[in-house]
Amino acid sequence: MRFDLITLFPEFFTSPLQSGLLGKALARNIAQVYLTNPRDFTQDKHRRVDDEPYGGGVGMLLKPEPLFAAVESLPILPRREIILMSPQGEPLKQGILQELAHNYDQLLLICGHYEGVDERVRQHLVTREISLGDFVLTCGEIPALALLNGVIRLRPGTVGKEASLKFESFEEGLLDYPQYTRPPVFRGWEVPDVLRSGNHAQIEAWQKEQQQQRTRDRRPDLWHAWQQAHPNSSD
Amino acid sequence: MRFDLITLFPEFFTSPLQSGLLGKALARNIAQVYLTNPRDFTQDKHRRVDDEPYGGGVGMLLKPEPLFAAVESLPILPRREIILMSPQGEPLKQGILQELAHNYDQLLLICGHYEGVDERVRQHLVTREISLGDFVLTCGEIPALALLNGVIRLRPGTVGKEASLKFESFEEGLLDYPQYTRPPVFRGWEVPDVLRSGNHAQIEAWQKEQQQQRTRDRRPDLWHAWQQAHPNSSD
Repeated sequence: MRFDLITLFPEFFTSPLQSGLLGKALARNIAQVYLTNPRDFTQDKHRRVDDEPYGGGVGMLLKPEPLFAAVESLPILPRREIILMSPQGEPLKQGILQELAHNYDQLLLICGHYEGVDERVRQHLVTREISLGDFVLTCGEIPALALLNGVIRLRPGTVGKEASLKFESFEEGLLDYPQYTRPPVFRGWEVPDVLRSGNHAQIEAWQKEQQQQRTRDRRPDLWHAWQQAHPNSSD
Repeated sequence: MRFDLITLFPEFFTSPLQSGLLGKALARNIAQVYLTNPRDFTQDKHRRVDDEPYGGGVGMLLKPEPLFAAVESLPILPRREIILMSPQGEPLKQGILQELAHNYDQLLLICGHYEGVDERVRQHLVTREISLGDFVLTCGEIPALALLNGVIRLRPGTVGKEASLKFESFEEGLLDYPQYTRPPVFRGWEVPDVLRSGNHAQIEAWQKEQQQQRTRDRRPDLWHAWQQAHPNSSD
């Protein structure tokens, strides 16, 4: 799987792409990441990538020409998506990561900057617009890194035990249950007895109950959707 | 304002903290970022930070002792919050960034890893749990970086023109309107006439209409909330 990051700050990605599980996955060639800087595709002597918005307003916009030229310079794999990371996009969910991880050969991620991008990029270049959430960051590099990480995580070989992907909370639509590890008593706070009982049926029942309770308490939105999808659930 | 990043992969942050607007803000001392590695607070010779979950299951959990010790090693500023970045938390919104940017002297961000953290960290150490969204990443470093960026962005001096923060779409609860910059015609695609008219009242009316239309089309959830909050709006 190929990723192309279209970014004015390619150096942003240096250490995150070398660190942790993502770094290991890339070192094992589970995905290939290429960086392309729109500034290298400017035609004027000032290498200008931004300009003022029509109609007034503060802040600068990314100009269309360097972004089109950057994207058009890249090889084209069969199943590809050109994604603009922007607060105006479809909010990122686990289902989108699943879809991107399994149905594509190439993902181009355009990192926005300044006040935004010229609308013609959105209309005529981009095939999909994705938002990290309803908040504003100084740059699109962080959302692009989140998407890249979440997609590569789902590719075979990234996470050691495939099984640990299987029962993820967001697949079921519920939050995760509480988990404990050693020591059994830490500063007087004990691990719940049931988890040390060795009774697997009881443990599973406890975990399920905790998942539902936590989702109900913390995320009424998810809980409502889960209840709709599980009309015959006893609790 | 002081940030403490509690992370097993401090090297992850090297290039993002030096890059772009965030790098400039930190160079100008708008905020101070400190990195603390829980592995430096282990007591055993293997410097172990994780262990198996009680009750079975795949994956490893972060043990409580190194996380408590790491946090307790740090200076304490008057108004502080100890935040765990986790998918079980409160979903991040612009309002949370505003609150964190203006009401705190110190934010400690604990970056989760592996399958999660021992529940006692959540119950007895952390004062707040925040989620980047309903999706799973390999690490909490990316969510922590997003939060740090979004908070520092709101501190005075980070974004050049203060004004460009004032009319942000998420303050109003609507998506942003389309924006255009030069050239006026690119590959035959024109900037809308109204934006080149110089008629400021018309431009503002067009932008408002576009914001509402786009929000209605793309985010029925935001649109519904906006309508509730603006019952007398004509459209």
